[in-house]
Amino acid sequence: MTGLNLHLAQIHIHPGSIGRNARAIIRAIKNNQSAHLLIFPELSLSGYLLGDMWERPSFLKECELWQQRIIANTGSTIVVFGNVITDWHKKGEDGRPLKHNCAILARAGRAIINPATKDPYFIKSLSPNYREFDESRHFCDLRKLGDMVSQNTTQLLKPVSISLNGKRLRLGITICEDGWANDYALSPFNVLASQKCDLLINISCSPFTLGKNNKRHRTFSMAAHNLNTPIVYVNAVSCQNNGKSTYTFDGSSALYDNVGHIIFQAPSFKPGIFQVNVQPGAPGKNAQSHIMRDVESNKYRDIYKALRFGIKEFMSQMGLHRVVVGVSGGIDSALTAALYGKILKPQDLLLVNMPSRYNSTLTKTLARDLAANLGCLYAEIPIEESVTLTKKQIDGIKVSSIDGKYREVITLTDFHMENIQARDRSSRVLSALASAFGGVFTCNGNKAEMTVGYATLYGDLGGYLAAIGDLWKQDVYGVADYLNQKVYKRLLIPPAVMTLPPSAELSANQNIEAGEGDPLHYEYHDRLFFSWVQNWNRSTPEETLSWYSQGMLEEKLGCPQVDVNKILPTPEAFIQDLERWWNAYSGLGVAKRIQAPPVLAVSSRAFGFDHRENLGIPFYSEAYFKLKKKLLGKHIKQV
Amino acid sequence: MTGLNLHLAQIHIHPGSIGRNARAIIRAIKNNQSAHLLIFPELSLSGYLLGDMWERPSFLKECELWQQRIIANTGSTIVVFGNVITDWHKKGEDGRPLKHNCAILARAGRAIINPATKDPYFIKSLSPNYREFDESRHFCDLRKLGDMVSQNTTQLLKPVSISLNGKRLRLGITICEDGWANDYALSPFNVLASQKCDLLINISCSPFTLGKNNKRHRTFSMAAHNLNTPIVYVNAVSCQNNGKSTYTFDGSSALYDNVGHIIFQAPSFKPGIFQVNVQPGAPGKNAQSHIMRDVESNKYRDIYKALRFGIKEFMSQMGLHRVVVGVSGGIDSALTAALYGKILKPQDLLLVNMPSRYNSTLTKTLARDLAANLGCLYAEIPIEESVTLTKKQIDGIKVSSIDGKYREVITLTDFHMENIQARDRSSRVLSALASAFGGVFTCNGNKAEMTVGYATLYGDLGGYLAAIGDLWKQDVYGVADYLNQKVYKRLLIPPAVMTLPPSAELSANQNIEAGEGDPLHYEYHDRLFFSWVQNWNRSTPEETLSWYSQGMLEEKLGCPQVDVNKILPTPEAFIQDLERWWNAYSGLGVAKRIQAPPVLAVSSRAFGFDHRENLGIPFYSEAYFKLKKKLLGKHIKQV
Repeated sequence: MTGLNLHLAQIHIHPGSIGRNARAIIRAIKNNQSAHLLIFPELSLSGYLLGDMWERPSFLKECELWQQRIIANTGSTIVVFGNVITDWHKKGEDGRPLKHNCAILARAGRAIINPATKDPYFIKSLSPNYREFDESRHFCDLRKLGDMVSQNTTQLLKPVSISLNGKRLRLGITICEDGWANDYALSPFNVLASQKCDLLINISCSPFTLGKNNKRHRTFSMAAHNLNTPIVYVNAVSCQNNGKSTYTFDGSSALYDNVGHIIFQAPSFKPGIFQVNVQPGAPGKNAQSHIMRDVESNKYRDIYKALRFGIKEFMSQMGLHRVVVGVSGGIDSALTAALYGKILKPQDLLLVNMPSRYNSTLTKTLARDLAANLGCLYAEIPIEESVTLTKKQIDGIKVSSIDGKYREVITLTDFHMENIQARDRSSRVLSALASAFGGVFTCNGNKAEMTVGYATLYGDLGGYLAAIGDLWKQDVYGVADYLNQKVYKRLLIPPAVMTLPPSAELSANQNIEAGEGDPLHYEYHDRLFFSWVQNWNRSTPEETLSWYSQGMLEEKLGCPQVDVNKILPTPEAFIQDLERWWNAYSGLGVAKRIQAPPVLAVSSRAFGFDHRENLGIPFYSEAYFKLKKKLLGKHIKQV
Repeated sequence: MTGLNLHLAQIHIHPGSIGRNARAIIRAIKNNQSAHLLIFPELSLSGYLLGDMWERPSFLKECELWQQRIIANTGSTIVVFGNVITDWHKKGEDGRPLKHNCAILARAGRAIINPATKDPYFIKSLSPNYREFDESRHFCDLRKLGDMVSQNTTQLLKPVSISLNGKRLRLGITICEDGWANDYALSPFNVLASQKCDLLINISCSPFTLGKNNKRHRTFSMAAHNLNTPIVYVNAVSCQNNGKSTYTFDGSSALYDNVGHIIFQAPSFKPGIFQVNVQPGAPGKNAQSHIMRDVESNKYRDIYKALRFGIKEFMSQMGLHRVVVGVSGGIDSALTAALYGKILKPQDLLLVNMPSRYNSTLTKTLARDLAANLGCLYAEIPIEESVTLTKKQIDGIKVSSIDGKYREVITLTDFHMENIQARDRSSRVLSALASAFGGVFTCNGNKAEMTVGYATLYGDLGGYLAAIGDLWKQDVYGVADYLNQKVYKRLLIPPAVMTLPPSAELSANQNIEAGEGDPLHYEYHDRLFFSWVQNWNRSTPEETLSWYSQGMLEEKLGCPQVDVNKILPTPEAFIQDLERWWNAYSGLGVAKRIQAPPVLAVSSRAFGFDHRENLGIPFYSEAYFKLKKKLLGKHIKQV
């Protein structure tokens, strides 16, 4: 064989739009007749994140209908695509028809038979059930099917042998997780390659996560090298959500040759059909060395690309084209506005500053400067009058039972007035303005705030999408800087926004002109919260306090440049701060996240479906209380 | 053997409070030394619904620590309890330490060895992955362990033989789902009983669902009868949540004798330790016949008990004891207030009526009457002045870019003013009032409204808990009537509330005194929405239209008393209504549910974690469009 012409169909999958996706596939088949193999992503008809849509028989039948049409449109090219296969005669463990996540191979109007199962499809072997993945809820994988039919899974995995130009081509068919088998008892790559394959195919619908492509390069390169077999990886470009969290799918399809070199990598977030030639059994020409890029160096570029694609697609799916951003003069709203500035026309972006008596001239000016730099619409709508009215109407009123037996006077404190301001801005002004503007308004909250619920429900926690809700505060600055430096190539976000102290400006105690602001030291708290939220084996105050008492906290949290003793000088202060935020994260923070907007995910643990949690009491272990007692040197009552 | 003294420890499990639960278990061991067997529920140290808490090693270690203490406290009684077992030397498929959901048997300070695995614990065989269950995310069940160690699961399931008073007692140990194996390839009851058991034990942490106990009685009775083996079922009393949905656990522990009769059933929602004697191999004395209660006849009682227990426990866990209910004079807020009237002291319950110009004298009077009947606190806070201020401040304002290039005038329509009123009530008045009152305010939305998002975000969709959010509108009336008839035994909810047309009263077109109200005919729409949301194999407009065109819609929806043609007299009207609500359910309804409060679940499909969904485009199959075209007799453009 002189080499295989592979066409990697990194198409844009529109979740739930079966007909639209299938027509794109059929068009691509017609336009790629020179390909030996034309390979589409996993679940390329339906998309991957669809909630419980799989429980609707009419949806499953629609997938079947269009699959038949795709197969009928195949010619001499071997077409590989992903689809749900329903076995209407069998039941899954939920009592509904049995469903598999499958690859289908078709040529000349017919599906190619799987030599292991004799079915016209290839079932995914491994179902991921961590992070945002829920596959065993809906799909029966090959392992479970093996149990059902009392066969070992390895017997159900065989390469398929296809004649091509008079020769036999042996293909090992895998789907997404099948290629990431390090923590599984079974490795489909290994089982297939041990039976001799010319090519391992992995079709995926794999969400973008910061750093994941590097990990894939390492994993797939290693597998190709160890198995002496080239691997082609085809991933979708898409934006899909499961309600609480919205994911981008970056494509970045790739080809690894039989020594593990990356022969080809498709661009991220760019749909397209990419042609590449592979010579089974021989190292590729033009082989790049292993791409072990430093994640950090491209971190903000990667985040920016994901955010931009995600916001744009999410809006397009919702039929939105106009947005209102409440701008305070602070960094979070500035970054949010700057992101939308690259997505919307200036006349479709409305920035609104809503000052109360506590807002400084500096931040008001900065908000206006930002709008001037963006050239977009701008308005200033003060909330003082309405807040005063609310105070007048509620503070001091008497409530009583009709029979006069019970009476009480209602009193509003300064703290209540802070929240009244925040809600007045979002639920009164922004909500009304956005609907009259024919659009939506944004939630500008960052991940640190969302962790501990440092935001007001129905106030600054409102909005249609939390586009930067998966960015720690320090990354908010990082991406903002990247936008100025690399995207706008000018100081779109005024430099003073980057340097003023973060502050809610909701009371006289949050006067930024006096240097007063948030009770969070982000260089420390970002990393502390990270260890609770995002560490793979997640920590609790027990670990935090143990590291602190051993003098290795900064190192363990990954912020060696910080000196926690300067921020929190005594064990009392340290423990008070620790418990304050842990209680907030485990308690009110959960209550607020339940009603928070969807988050655009970029990390390996975004709030929402990937961070499952219950509203309950904060957990402290007995070991924590012992350590606390030792540090404070007195008896502490255990809660 | 003269009979076994079983003590069914249907204890109240406090989710996440390991020490508190473990101490209760240790106390129970001391107080039940006369028992042969003292049986606690599944995961009785930790609770069951804990989000991703299982990913925290310190939490797992705390479970280990208290397990050792419980075992150390056992005497001559065989104690059975549930706990997570962590195998720190092995990894799960998520790369974290391997965890099992286990039963532990202990006596005389030692754990009893599992004869099949030689471990001091018994691993759950079946992991449910439907509805709100997520078990394979965290736990490796016996089937998966079988795969890992290349052994058939049936070889890993053996009865444990224990000497008791000089005789051998053979126990078959199962956990929750193990007893519900109808849709699984493996039945642990069957595998264990086939090896001869004196008693099958099923420890559970099983959420209350309307009708589920009847189903369990059928399933477990049948198993006991077929296997000629008594079964004891011990379930927790608890209230646990996974964020978006809150579940009650009703206990209702039971004993089935070897012919399948129910010998004993513990009360629902009542913690306690219940003593019952069973003679293995002989039908029980005092055997009741199979309890095949008519679900409908006790439906409202069961719902009421679950709601009352759930609200009370949820509040207690959050440390709440005061509540504000916005009362409109309508049925939803009246039922909500009446429920809280049975939970709170009158001085801790504040009803607030917030009229605008559109509220009728009738509903204002009814709201006041309800407060009078409850004897609780009451206030009337009109929103007219604030709504007028918002209109004045936003309607007609000019927004423009700083450079003057773009300009636009903002206009508020009547529709915008409706939402402004709703948000003014919740996000301005109720939020401020509730915090000043030292409490929270309720969301009064029902399931029909939540299905189609017929509510305003940050408005009537706000609140700390949607206590009646899993009740269809017709069930709202049913439970309200039950409260008047059976709970309060007086007309606490004024009869006119039950009969006036449901209306939002937000515009001149929703004048209840002119008989105008919601665009929903609940006797039909409740059932239509049910078929989309709650049918096990869920329908889409394809099925709806197909049933309609065959004249069998009312029958299929389960509302034979309704004549849809009277509500929607033409196919055009029918289809317009169908698409309106399907689009709302699939689109804006999802967006609103993402930010809605937690729902207190009573049905087999509550919104939240049991109703996973994505925000996307509404799905219509090709068959739907064909049917529509046929019915309308003209060409319809396919979306």
